[in-house]
Amino acid sequence: MFAGCPFKILEKPKFVYDGKWLKMREVRFRKCDSSQEQVWESVHRRRVPQSKPDAVVVFATLHRDGKKYFILIKQYRIPMSGMCLEFPAGLIEEGETIEAAGLRELKEETGYTATKILSCTKGKQSLSPDLADESISIMMVEVDGDAPENKNLKQDLDDGEIIECNDIPPEDVLNGKVVLVECEKLLSYIEFICTEVYVDSMVYTFALGMNYAQHFR
Amino acid sequence: MFAGCPFKILEKPKFVYDGKWLKMREVRFRKCDSSQEQVWESVHRRRVPQSKPDAVVVFATLHRDGKKYFILIKQYRIPMSGMCLEFPAGLIEEGETIEAAGLRELKEETGYTATKILSCTKGKQSLSPDLADESISIMMVEVDGDAPENKNLKQDLDDGEIIECNDIPPEDVLNGKVVLVECEKLLSYIEFICTEVYVDSMVYTFALGMNYAQHFR
Repeated sequence: MFAGCPFKILEKPKFVYDGKWLKMREVRFRKCDSSQEQVWESVHRRRVPQSKPDAVVVFATLHRDGKKYFILIKQYRIPMSGMCLEFPAGLIEEGETIEAAGLRELKEETGYTATKILSCTKGKQSLSPDLADESISIMMVEVDGDAPENKNLKQDLDDGEIIECNDIPPEDVLNGKVVLVECEKLLSYIEFICTEVYVDSMVYTFALGMNYAQHFR
Repeated sequence: MFAGCPFKILEKPKFVYDGKWLKMREVRFRKCDSSQEQVWESVHRRRVPQSKPDAVVVFATLHRDGKKYFILIKQYRIPMSGMCLEFPAGLIEEGETIEAAGLRELKEETGYTATKILSCTKGKQSLSPDLADESISIMMVEVDGDAPENKNLKQDLDDGEIIECNDIPPEDVLNGKVVLVECEKLLSYIEFICTEVYVDSMVYTFALGMNYAQHFR
């Protein structure tokens, strides 16, 4: 389990809590040049181990009336006790491909049907590697907002999900259920709302990456 | 605690596990239009509540000999049971400003002293809002690699940290302790190693944001 680990693992890792969805693990270890014993606690999803990442995150751009928007969702997150602005995302089901899961989650959470898959990351990307073993893949898609299937949208949410946006949005934001932000205005939109809602680190990081390429190269 | 929550919270949240560093919480709830009771489990750091984010993540560019590099770190993460490629980052200490924490963590983890702070995000950014209440701030800095303080670097790691890179790197990667990647080559470097190590989602997302701005605008 700990192949390549530079620490000395002192005993078999043990699960100290086993919930309905999550488990908590303790690993006792020390640095090889130290006698100081330490413990690393981490959280793990309680699910069948699979070679795929746990979840897929979908970066979707909507093309409509000659403009481009990022499709974001704003939802209440019980762990955070507050509203979060995030990319659509969800767990990959057993036997499902990453791409199929991404298309399904986009459709369920936002109503949109992707027209084209631009890319999908390989491997597994860590999300909070200090705390959890959770991993994701990132899929980029385009959505043709003028296509018939992308009119009169309908969400199909899981029992634990409510995704809605009822705020008075700035002028570059449309739609009451998902948040559409003009691609060029992503960073300024985020800076506008980041003290009101939790902007997910991936959304913020994507905007900073775009801004870096435009202004600091 | 759950101001603005669209779910009906059915009882006072309870901590079902209390470790040395982490706690696990259970919240019983239902959707307002459903009688189906559900439980949301989440993980929380065991620390003094503060208005600041838990941690700061540092996007640092090193300017050296007329070239620009991102300063990344590659470290073994016990929760992931593997090596992760990440931005330097760390917890913000009590009484410490976000900026001071970012400069300290960059110096401790990589040895580099930042020359200029470009930006620092406001609010709190969620990291894994489905699972945890953890939040971060993102700081962008520049490092003058030709300055005397940025020669002959020395790390100053915490007890639980070993940050090293002993692989044979592709030609655009230098340095045995931190990973320097030429800014323009970030995405191709990531695509090269993403099946060998866990590339952190923030690193991957930043590269995708840069690439998006360069090719899809």
